[in-house]
Amino acid sequence: MSDCNLDAQMTFLVEADRLKSVNRATTLCDGSRPENSAEHSWHAALYAMTLADQAPEGCDVNRVIQMLLLHDLVEIDAGDAPVFGDHDHQAIEAAEKLAADRIFGLLPTEQAARFRAIWDEFEANQSPEAQYAKSLDRMVAPVQNLHSGGGSWIDYGVDWDRFASRVGHKIDNGAPGLWAWIAPRAKAFLDRLNVS
Amino acid sequence: MSDCNLDAQMTFLVEADRLKSVNRATTLCDGSRPENSAEHSWHAALYAMTLADQAPEGCDVNRVIQMLLLHDLVEIDAGDAPVFGDHDHQAIEAAEKLAADRIFGLLPTEQAARFRAIWDEFEANQSPEAQYAKSLDRMVAPVQNLHSGGGSWIDYGVDWDRFASRVGHKIDNGAPGLWAWIAPRAKAFLDRLNVS
Repeated sequence: MSDCNLDAQMTFLVEADRLKSVNRATTLCDGSRPENSAEHSWHAALYAMTLADQAPEGCDVNRVIQMLLLHDLVEIDAGDAPVFGDHDHQAIEAAEKLAADRIFGLLPTEQAARFRAIWDEFEANQSPEAQYAKSLDRMVAPVQNLHSGGGSWIDYGVDWDRFASRVGHKIDNGAPGLWAWIAPRAKAFLDRLNVS
Repeated sequence: MSDCNLDAQMTFLVEADRLKSVNRATTLCDGSRPENSAEHSWHAALYAMTLADQAPEGCDVNRVIQMLLLHDLVEIDAGDAPVFGDHDHQAIEAAEKLAADRIFGLLPTEQAARFRAIWDEFEANQSPEAQYAKSLDRMVAPVQNLHSGGGSWIDYGVDWDRFASRVGHKIDNGAPGLWAWIAPRAKAFLDRLNVS
């Protein structure tokens, strides 16, 4: 590759730095501050690597890791849409596609298409890799909420039924073993929260 | 794997959350705050993925990505040792090995050994994967310093000779193309800094 390609790659990597300033609704496990989407992306990729034995058969875990490294970059332009918020899903989808055009478009042409295809595959949620990645992406926030004392569940007044319907089937879809693990823990926590 | 293994894996992933609270000497590109080691690990893994054409021949970039996801976990116990600081390298090495024992030791036995081997390989800096990973790990901070107006270079009074001797050969060792890219930029910046 020419230096010109390396210039483009470095421009992309510097732009990516801005993901560290996009905050999510979830806090760190210790509740000390909101989590940002860059450190979340690291954690989700580490989940993929650590929980590889939970992936669907034939799933390429290295592709899942690459998917999770890229999955939130569009939030640099489109922001994070908390899972329990009320959103205009079409508007978000449109904003994220524009963001993907711009951000992956910083890369050399062939690489831009390759990275964009990974992100499109994640969004389409059809391949085993995308389904496992999406499930992991949904798994990390409830784990953090369980440790931080409720986090975004409290901010959004979430009960068990809402959690199970909004998040449950998304975790179950690509990682049923993880849903079986978190469901009783989340139910016990959220039922206690609603009684008190 | 039994549920008992999944419990251990989740304990490891929750413990890993603490890396988000370990600050580095480098700031974000916009200079707004110090960078933490979790978001740095994400960025370094994204560098590995994006700059794969700079990797040494025969280098398994997916292993490099896994290496960079794990490489700083020991800082949860041992803290970050800024590259321009004066350190007792033997003491740091000992503290990091103890940290690796404890943190990777949270995982199921076979997986603990596998993750530890990846980290040991990174530290040994002998395989093409480790050399490329180490070079990327050294590349990200100067890129951020160039954008933030100096960052840790100013805090530690770094000039070109010190940068070239402390960092240059480490980038050059596993990614000579990246050293060729950053060297003239860093030299111009640091020479200007020392004149003014």
